Order: sequence, then structure tokens, then C-alpha cells
Amino acid sequence: MNTFGHLLRVTTFGESHGPAIGCVLDGCPPGIAIAPEDFVHDLARRATGTSRHTSQRHEADEVEILSGVYEGVTTGTPIALLIRNTDQRSKDYSKIAAQFRPGHADYTYWQKYGIRDPRGGGRSSARETTMRVAAAVIAKKWLADRHGVRVYGWLSQLGEIAPQGFDASVIEANPFFWPHAAQVDALETYMDALRKSGDSVGARVTVVADGVPPGWGEPVYGKLDGDLAAAMMSINAVKGVEIGDGFASVAQKGSVHRDVMTPDGFLSNHAGGILGGISSGQQVVVSVAFKPTSSLRLPVDGLDADGNVVDIVTTGRHDPCVGIRATPICEAMLALVLMDQALRHRAQCSDVGDVSPRIPGSITTDAKR
Amino acid sequence: MNTFGHLLRVTTFGESHGPAIGCVLDGCPPGIAIAPEDFVHDLARRATGTSRHTSQRHEADEVEILSGVYEGVTTGTPIALLIRNTDQRSKDYSKIAAQFRPGHADYTYWQKYGIRDPRGGGRSSARETTMRVAAAVIAKKWLADRHGVRVYGWLSQLGEIAPQGFDASVIEANPFFWPHAAQVDALETYMDALRKSGDSVGARVTVVADGVPPGWGEPVYGKLDGDLAAAMMSINAVKGVEIGDGFASVAQKGSVHRDVMTPDGFLSNHAGGILGGISSGQQVVVSVAFKPTSSLRLPVDGLDADGNVVDIVTTGRHDPCVGIRATPICEAMLALVLMDQALRHRAQCSDVGDVSPRIPGSITTDAKR
Amino acid sequence: MNTFGHLLRVTTFGESHGPAIGCVLDGCPPGIAIAPEDFVHDLARRATGTSRHTSQRHEADEVEILSGVYEGVTTGTPIALLIRNTDQRSKDYSKIAAQFRPGHADYTYWQKYGIRDPRGGGRSSARETTMRVAAAVIAKKWLADRHGVRVYGWLSQLGEIAPQGFDASVIEANPFFWPHAAQVDALETYMDALRKSGDSVGARVTVVADGVPPGWGEPVYGKLDGDLAAAMMSINAVKGVEIGDGFASVAQKGSVHRDVMTPDGFLSNHAGGILGGISSGQQVVVSVAFKPTSSLRLPVDGLDADGNVVDIVTTGRHDPCVGIRATPICEAMLALVLMDQALRHRAQCSDVGDVSPRIPGSITTDAKR
Amino acid sequence: MNTFGHLLRVTTFGESHGPAIGCVLDGCPPGIAIAPEDFVHDLARRATGTSRHTSQRHEADEVEILSGVYEGVTTGTPIALLIRNTDQRSKDYSKIAAQFRPGHADYTYWQKYGIRDPRGGGRSSARETTMRVAAAVIAKKWLADRHGVRVYGWLSQLGEIAPQGFDASVIEANPFFWPHAAQVDALETYMDALRKSGDSVGARVTVVADGVPPGWGEPVYGKLDGDLAAAMMSINAVKGVEIGDGFASVAQKGSVHRDVMTPDGFLSNHAGGILGGISSGQQVVVSVAFKPTSSLRLPVDGLDADGNVVDIVTTGRHDPCVGIRATPICEAMLALVLMDQALRHRAQCSDVGDVSPRIPGSITTDAKR
Repeated sequence: MNTFGHLLRVTTFGESHGPAIGCVLDGCPPGIAIAPEDFVHDLARRATGTSRHTSQRHEADEVEILSGVYEGVTTGTPIALLIRNTDQRSKDYSKIAAQFRPGHADYTYWQKYGIRDPRGGGRSSARETTMRVAAAVIAKKWLADRHGVRVYGWLSQLGEIAPQGFDASVIEANPFFWPHAAQVDALETYMDALRKSGDSVGARVTVVADGVPPGWGEPVYGKLDGDLAAAMMSINAVKGVEIGDGFASVAQKGSVHRDVMTPDGFLSNHAGGILGGISSGQQVVVSVAFKPTSSLRLPVDGLDADGNVVDIVTTGRHDPCVGIRATPICEAMLALVLMDQALRHRAQCSDVGDVSPRIPGSITTDAKR
Repeated sequence: MNTFGHLLRVTTFGESHGPAIGCVLDGCPPGIAIAPEDFVHDLARRATGTSRHTSQRHEADEVEILSGVYEGVTTGTPIALLIRNTDQRSKDYSKIAAQFRPGHADYTYWQKYGIRDPRGGGRSSARETTMRVAAAVIAKKWLADRHGVRVYGWLSQLGEIAPQGFDASVIEANPFFWPHAAQVDALETYMDALRKSGDSVGARVTVVADGVPPGWGEPVYGKLDGDLAAAMMSINAVKGVEIGDGFASVAQKGSVHRDVMTPDGFLSNHAGGILGGISSGQQVVVSVAFKPTSSLRLPVDGLDADGNVVDIVTTGRHDPCVGIRATPICEAMLALVLMDQALRHRAQCSDVGDVSPRIPGSITTDAKR
Repeated sequence: MNTFGHLLRVTTFGESHGPAIGCVLDGCPPGIAIAPEDFVHDLARRATGTSRHTSQRHEADEVEILSGVYEGVTTGTPIALLIRNTDQRSKDYSKIAAQFRPGHADYTYWQKYGIRDPRGGGRSSARETTMRVAAAVIAKKWLADRHGVRVYGWLSQLGEIAPQGFDASVIEANPFFWPHAAQVDALETYMDALRKSGDSVGARVTVVADGVPPGWGEPVYGKLDGDLAAAMMSINAVKGVEIGDGFASVAQKGSVHRDVMTPDGFLSNHAGGILGGISSGQQVVVSVAFKPTSSLRLPVDGLDADGNVVDIVTTGRHDPCVGIRATPICEAMLALVLMDQALRHRAQCSDVGDVSPRIPGSITTDAKR
Repeated sequence: MNTFGHLLRVTTFGESHGPAIGCVLDGCPPGIAIAPEDFVHDLARRATGTSRHTSQRHEADEVEILSGVYEGVTTGTPIALLIRNTDQRSKDYSKIAAQFRPGHADYTYWQKYGIRDPRGGGRSSARETTMRVAAAVIAKKWLADRHGVRVYGWLSQLGEIAPQGFDASVIEANPFFWPHAAQVDALETYMDALRKSGDSVGARVTVVADGVPPGWGEPVYGKLDGDLAAAMMSINAVKGVEIGDGFASVAQKGSVHRDVMTPDGFLSNHAGGILGGISSGQQVVVSVAFKPTSSLRLPVDGLDADGNVVDIVTTGRHDPCVGIRATPICEAMLALVLMDQALRHRAQCSDVGDVSPRIPGSITTDAKR
């Protein structure tokens, strides 16, 4: 199950320290202009080592297009993308191959498969997400060109720190994807202290899509929110997914939560742009919880394959907050799910003509942000 | 997309006020003893009208087994289950067919399909979940008999009220699936006042599975937590899903979150029993946020198909808190996902013999509950 | 795996002598007018007992629409169809439950599942195909209304007898779906003698689709011909599938086989309307081989569950040539595959505008017929 | 749809003259020893240019294992295999890009996608089948090691020439995979004359699997024969598929066709080892019809994108009989389908213990061969 999507299907492969990682994007419409340089921007946004707050692994992340593109345009056949792993530090893995770090997938892979690739986390490494970001470059392009849909996101919580303001224009101007410029210095200080302590912290990422037309998504098990939940939860370190108000809905009254429709648009967006599994034309809003990474310089007890307690100290290159560079990954999953649903929608419902009334989605600025 | 599951596949059909609802459970192992009376208990648990706090629709919910069972035992062929709808109040739907209530799927179905079945919410009604509960009766039985896995759940928040204690033995003894008996009277009072006010409120449900062996689940897009997120989010009114500590992980330190393994078991279960998408042998813990229903006696503006504002008053039978009877539904989705993953696991990994060390999962009592 | 189709998904359930058979048709576009009487014609065409040459089981085959249709029109939600089994002869199955007839699925089901439903063949009965015909009524309607596609077929060989002429207008006027009226009396005589002998014979069915536009089908594993092969081979008793000239291509020269295109159309149709897995705009031609049924009045050795040889005599109602009423079933599978591919095509390729040159398909009368 | 298989999933990508072709094999059990040299034998068997009777394109076909294998053993994660295209003759494709050769996929790709990669047939080239053969090396190994299943095949017809004897030991000793040594000289002469004439001819390939246990396959739409039909029909140039006696069954009597079971084994194998979609324990027998290639040195009319008639002469490297080197490809598809079904079988039916009576499959020598 290294494939997701029903019509737009992404298959990824590769281990953290294997020769390469790659993906196959199948079901993509023909006629989309794509060049290797199109991948540079988003891959750089998720890359490690671009600030002192992320892992210092330096990967070139150069994308080779192996198939599916002819003279710069997609042909409708599967698009294979390949990235060679270049910054693999050779070391002796024989000792750690049969040691299980707490909070990692070491033990569960071992129990499932009876074997595991210990090099940098193998398949369970966040390096796999590189290919999601690459595949989504094509999805973002199609969504924008064909439907005017724009996907973007930001860090909506870092540890206990929440944004004290929201300005979309500053998100890309700081290494945290933080939407409030005045807090960036404090975040730097916080992260420096955290890194020094050897500990890590969790984060929340929020991603949105503007311009999604009403009608994307399917009842009952192909719901847009259901697909988004699966897509986000498939990202490493994710422990929770919310649509719209999410868990805040628990304490809400129905008279507050229900978003009133007027001919001029919705008066609020507690639903996060999805009703009954189908987009409403409002902004689609998804929030994602990232756990703190378990790779710490602080020593801890682990187990080995003989059942003995072993001392675990992580000396490698790791992010003290994996959520910091997760924004492009969450964007990628949102874009891929939306494009898949858009294709599914036109497959089933192209016979349906224009449907009135189509009311404008109100893009609200609510507390959530 | 009215099917979910990869090897154990559930297809449901039916509208709230159509002639019947039903499901087809495909891929089920042969040899499981099943009789119509096996469905009675769980269907009664999710049924409406069993207390004054839920909708007063009274459905017999009598399950007819149409196929796949011979002489009381599953044969490996698809199991079709059928429930006739009996309590459909005939009324004139022509007026509301083209009216869209806020917070409902009326508008989105209309926009997607250009048509909708307005009778009691049609396909988007929670009545569809009846068949999930029915299908899961078989899954629960197989999980218990074959693997000793036990699935259960409770209401872990009602509006702003959280349990002040946890006693699994009292959950089934009150109409709220509440784990702390001393609060039940207060909940009754709260719900009576809510019902009188004409408003509704959200809820949180937590479901767990004890006894899940390590190894169920698949990287990367077939993760156990990914499947659970999709399954839970596909339930009506759900706006969020958490695994283990979920969104609480955001503010946690890695030194706290990582669950230390010892030869005697895990020392904590912040992960909720899943690491890298694969079960760890600990208790699997999933929490689900239900929004407050939008069907209120409080009038509100809606729209009609001509784009005019119309006055919406819900006079029908509705739950002031849909989460109250959602516990069996969340249990059902958990059981169905676990069984599907169990089958997938033995397909791929039966060649792997016993793997050591298999450490016991510690079933902890943490703040989450 | 009782579901087929990728976007238009058909799930069938039910055993020959269980309470009912049924299907769920998912992914169907909204807005198609459907009424119970629409199913009568095709179900009668495949029904048993309509001539003395087919099994004398008499089933009412009354279709109940359980869901997915509101006020006579499909809504886009799953369409469940149900047919009650009425002509089940009660008898004692305990003896034959553990006996395996040669040439039947008795032994293989037993080996696979360790249990089998012996009543009239259980799930492996051709009765299951009733629901394919029912589901395809909707597909045929959509193909005709939306694309002008017409699906039909005929018996192209009965034992060693091949048609000596072809007149489409006579196919429906005889109980054999035979395309040459002058041979019908001889077929009657042949079948009477066969029935008297207690033996059975095989048959070939050819089905075609007129009006399929170029472009339906997908490389590499979603080819139109690949889907057709799977669909036809899934019908009971089928042992071979051909597209266009099929096995006759083996002895052909390339200079003969390649269908020359001219601005006025193709000059031949050896390919059967499919090139590279994609429809060419010519008539789609599929031929199917049906084996002779193994249920004969002629006694034969079988085995029982203790490994003993037992004497098998079939005294029940059986077709001496199952291919005789298979034409509507093959048509059904062709229609369902075409509609699924049509939906998939517009999902991926709606962005592609009109493509020139679109040359007319020449509907040729070749030896194949 | 460049993926096939349900649990063992093969995704292929790449164009004939693109930078590379490759595949991802997902769902593979862990613990299988695999090295790059394991691919050499079967890839050489299907390679072009190994005799004067096949295309003179010379490809190194060196397989690089990109993922899923650690220290020479599969880990359960997706196995990506890559082969660089080395013998691409650079030429000017601008003229032929918008020309459509008869009998090729040129016109249908153009109609579907509005664009096509004209270099050597692009995605529709038989070069894609290289990766199927590569992926199947792993499947063959697992089937042999785990279940003692052996897959092999031969050319069972070349144009109008059929084998006049059968000796499995000579198949690999001639460039035709021909099972009767005495005819090989005549075949050489036949092919030399054919090549000189500039024409091409069709062929039939038969592939079998020995040692398949009873029980693999699933009713109704996941039948073993249904999967095989789809798999074989997905190979380029295939126009027909038969199981067991195939189309010969049409003229057979039931008293002949039904394979009698005795405690010592089956007395014949007309069914080709599959009953009701499930393996019977006999030899699985599949025959495949290959059309004559349409790439001839004989000139023919084609069309261009402006609708004009153009003169087509194929001067490139082409096989006068594509079936000659198709045996390893058909073997590959048989092996991949069997392994997928084996995994599916143990998923659903591992709870079923040993089932008696299990009778030996009689490997018969019948006319078919």
C-alpha cells in the first residue's frame, strides 16, 4: 500500500539511505506543461538544512523526469520522478539494525516484517515525503490553471506558542511558515533553547485551499474530508487531523456551528468548507497535529532483538520540531486529494449542467487561524 | 465510493426514508457462526429513541441475512444484510426538496448532483451508519474469537463536560456511554435543558482496542492510523480524529511523548498503540470529534433553489447531541479497519515466523481518558 | 472480490437458492430515468424456461429498487437492486453437500473455504448473472442516451454449427439469438436430440458495440480489451475471450491484419475496434467461448469428502447448452465495461478538446460474424 | 491504470525511447533473497536481437534495485526496479509525431490524449513488458520456494505451423521456444522467408503452472481465470486468451469436457486447472493469441493529423513475429497473477485448516500442447 488516490494515483518508493527515492504519478491529464525546474521551489521549502532549526542533512533533491512527459508536456501516461540520495553518511549499521528506539517505527517494522532497513529510518523516514511534495507540484499547477484553486498553509502552533496575528504575506518570509512576523524572533529563541536542551516539541500545521468549487467529494466512504484525513494521517509523526473547527466543535452549540448561507455568501466557515463529505465552495481548512520527534540527544532506554535493555543516544541529524518544515508536505497532500476528487467529480457528474444557486464562499478570518 | 476496506470490504446502500438500507460484507473468512440475533445487541446500542435524549424515530432494525451464510456459518461469499425502513413518516417533501438547510449536506448534494433525495436527509442521514454497526458485529466476533481483540468505547466529552473519572464497567449502564457514574445525573439535567432550549451540542467519543498484536498496518499509505482516520471521518458529523494523544502532542516534549519500552512492557502509551502506521501491541486509542447537529428547533435562514432566503425550522425528530449514540458507530469502524488490516497482514507476512522480542502492551490509565 | 469496475462499480451478492440475489451499482451518474419495468425486457431475455431448450426453473425475477433512485431518477448514490428467489425446490441437501461433481466448482470451493452451500450450486450458479443483466440495463440506457452507443450480440456458434448468414433483425426472433433464420429449425432439431441424449454442448457468443467514440480505454493495465477479457471470463462456464479476429490472427499476415485508415473510414476491422487498449471508433467486437455444462443426466463418477468415489446423476433442471441464453449476459458485461471506461476517460481527458482527424468507423461484415 | 494486482501490485512506467523504464512491486512478502543478477536470465530470454528473427535493438537491460531490498533480502517495502534505455536512435520525430500508422496505437492515443510520444511507439511499445518480466522474477522465485510452483511456456503456434510433438526439454534450446526440435529448421526457413517478404505473422503462446494447490482464486469478479484473462490481454498485440481447452470447448460435449476426479487424480484437464474461478490442483493452462505486428517494410496508407493520406514505410527495427519472444512475458503475467491470488487466498482462508480430500492433479499430455 504505497499508492494512494483513486484516479490520480501516487506511488512512492525508496528508503532514506537507499540509492534513490521516487514516485509514479498515474492518471494525470495530458497537456500540462512540466519541467524539472518546476520542482525546485517546493522541494526547497521542505528541504532540510535550510535553517539551523532543521536537520542538517543536505540533499540536492534534483528531480529527474523519467517518463510521461514529452517535449515538456504531460502525455497522459505515468509520470515517474526520481531523486538520487546523495548525502548518505556511510556508517556501520550492524549494531543498530536490531535495536529499537522508543517512539520510532523500529520495533513495529521488526515485529511485522522480521527485518528492517536501519539506515536513517529506512522506509519510515520523513525523506519519503519529498516525493509527495514533488508529485503535488503537478497537482497544484493543474488546480491553479484549470480551476483557479490555490493551496497554501502555515504553522499554526509551535509547542505551546500560537500565532497572535495572521498575515498570509509573511508566511514564506520566515523559516517557520509563521503567519505573524512579530513573533519570529521569539520562535528563534525558543528553538535555540530547545535544540540546546536536546529535546523536541510538537507542532500544528494548517493548510487551506481557496477557490474550490462546490461539489468535490463523494458520500459515503469517498468523502473529501475522509480522504483528507487519510492523506494527512499518512504523513510521518501526524497524530491528529481536523476539518474546520475540528475538536473545537465538541464544545460548540449547533446554533453557533451551522454556517448560515445567504445569497451573498456564507456568514461563517466552522465547517471548513465541507458538508456531507462534499465541498461547499468555501475555503477548505485542514489542521494537522505533529508529535515531537523521538530522536533526541537525551539518552533513553531502548530494547534490542534479544530483549535486552540498551542505551539509546541519537547523535545523527534530526529536527527538533518536525512540524516546522511540514507545511509544504501538508499542502501537497491537500493538493493531491483535491485533484483526485476533481477528476472523480467530473467523471460522475459531467452530465449535470450548471446548478443554481451557486453562492460565493466567504473567506473568513476566524480564531482558528 | 460507497465501499471501504481493501480485503474486508463493506459496501452500504440506502436512504433514510427509502424502502431499505443494507450492506454487503465481502472478503470475510469462512467458518464464522452468525445468526440474525447476533446483530440485536449492537443495533440496539446505536438505535434512536431508547432514551429521551435521542431522536424519537423508532425503527425495528431487524436484520435479514440475504447471502453468504449457510447453516449458520459464513461461507466466504459476500454477506448481504438488509434492514427495511419501517418508521418513515409520510409527508409532502416537494417544498423542502429544493430548500437548503445551513450546516447540512442539502446544498452540497444539490450542487454536485443537480438532484437530491430530501426525505429525512436521504443518503446523508446518519441512518446509513446502522449498516456499519451491523457489518462490524461480524468483525468484532472474528477479532475476539481469532485474536482475542476487544473493541469498546465511551463518550469522552459532552459539550464542555469531561469525565471526572473512568470506570469501564459503568459505560453500558447509562444512556450516554459515560465512564463515570457520578456524573450521569448532571448529564441528564444538561441534556434536558439543551433539548428545551432547542439547541444542540458537540461531543467527543473515544474508542479503543485491547489485544491487538504488533504488526497490523502498512506503510506508507495503508497505515493503520491512516485507515482509521478515513474510517472515522467518514461518519456523519465528524470533524476531527486523533490517535493516542492527538492534538495534545503539539505542546508535548519528545522526552515525554516517546513511550519507553522495557522487557515488561511499555511505560506509557502516548502513541495510542501505533508507530509508523503499524500496531505496537499496546492499546489502540482513537478519539473522534462530533459537531453539534444543525437540525434545531431554533429558526434560521436557509436558501432555496431559486436563490431566495427561506425560513428553516426543523420540526422533525432529531438528536440534540448526535455524539451520544455514536460510540457503537466508532467501535464499528475501528473493528472493521482492524479486521481488514489483520487480513492484509497475514497475506503479506505469513512467511515471517515468530518474531522476538514481543513485549506486552501496557494498558495505561492516562489523562486522555 | 464480488465487485468489479473502477468508477462504475457493480457488487453482486446472493446464492442460487438463498433468499435473494442482488446488486449495488455505485458511481452511476445522476439524472438517469429508471423504473422497475425497465428491467423486464433484458431479464426475460436471459431467463430460464422461456423455451424448451433452457432449464425449466421459473423465476419471477421481479426487480425491487432499494436505493439510489428518487422520483424515478438516479441521484448519484448507490443503486441497490433486489430479486427474491421464488422457485427454490426444497430438498435434502445433506447428502450432496459433501459430494463433488466433476466439472463443477464443488471441489474447488470445498478446498478453498472448507465449506460450501450445495443448494443449486450456491454462489457459483449462473443465477448470479441475473444481477449483471439488471445492472447493465442502466449502463445500456446511459450509453445509448448519452453517446448513441448500441450494444447487442448473438450466438455465433452452437457446438459445431456456425451461422451461414447474418441478419441482425432476426436475432431476437428465435430462442437461440441466432443471426440466420433459415437455420433455426435445424437448431431446434439439434437441441432436441441433444437433450434426449442427456449430454450437453458448448457455444460461442459474439457481442458488439456500435457507436463507441475513439479514446475509451487506458494503457497499460486498464486497457479496454483487458477489462473486457476479465469481465467476460468472470461469467460462469467461459473458457476463452477474443477481441476482433482473436485467435484467427495467429495465422494472419500483418499485411492483412492491419486495418487501413482512410479519411472515409477504416477499410476493415480485424482489430475489433481496439488499438493499444483504446477504442478506435470502429465497432467493438468481442467473442466468448462457453464450455458445455457438466450437469448431465449421464451418470459419472464423483468424489465425496471422505475421498470415496460416488455415482453422480444430475436429475435437476439444467441447460443442455448454457451459451444459448448467455447473449444478454455478455452484452451486460460489455455495456458495464464501456460505461466504466467512458467515465474514466472523461475524468482524465476532459481537458482535451476536439481532436482531429476523427474518421468514421466502418462497420464491416466479415467472416467472423 | 498502470498498476495491476490487488495485494501484489505492479506499477510500470516508461516509454520506449525515454530515459528509462521501471516498475514498483508493492506488497511483496519480506525475506526473499534478490540480487541484480537474478534478473539476467529472464530478461535475456525476452530480449531483442538475440537471434536474427527478432528486432535488432540491443538494450543492456541492466536492472538497478532502487528500494525494498536490504542486504540482499526483501524488506516488505516497495521494490523499485530501473532499467536505463541505452539504444535509442536519435532521429527527427517531428514528422511522424502527427502521422498515424494503421494497426498501431498512434491514432487512438492521439484521439484520447490529443498528444503522443512518437519515439518508438512511446508508452505503447512492447518495451514496457521488460519490467513485467523483471517483476515476475521475484514472483517466480517466491512461488517456487514457498509453494513448489513452476511456471513455464512455449510457442504453440507460429502462423499456420503447429508443433508436431512436445518435449519440454527442448523449449529453451531454440530461439522460438518451440517444443519440438525436429521442426526448428523449418521454422528458421519460414522466418527467413517471412522477413525477406517484408511481412509479419501471428503466433500463439501457451503457458502453464505446475504445482498450484487447490483453492487459489476468488468468485465472482476476482476469479483466477478472470485475472489471467486481464493480465494476458494487457500484453501488447494480444487478441485472445484461453483457459484449458478454450474455444475448442465450443464444439465439445459435456460428457467429454468434464474432467473426472478419482482418488488418484483427475483423468483429464480440459478445464485448464480452474473450476469456478478457483484452482483445482491441476496444471493451470493458458493460451494467448498474438496478432502479426503492423510494422512492415511493405508500404501502406496512413493518415496524418490534418486528415491527409500519407505513405507509411517502416524502416526501423521490428519483429516479424512479436510472439516469438512473448513466452517469457506470458510466463511473467501468469506468475504475477498466481502470487497475487496466493496472497489473497491466505488472507481470507488461513483460518481454514487442511481440507480433505486433496487429490493429485494429473498432468496430462493432451492435444492442446
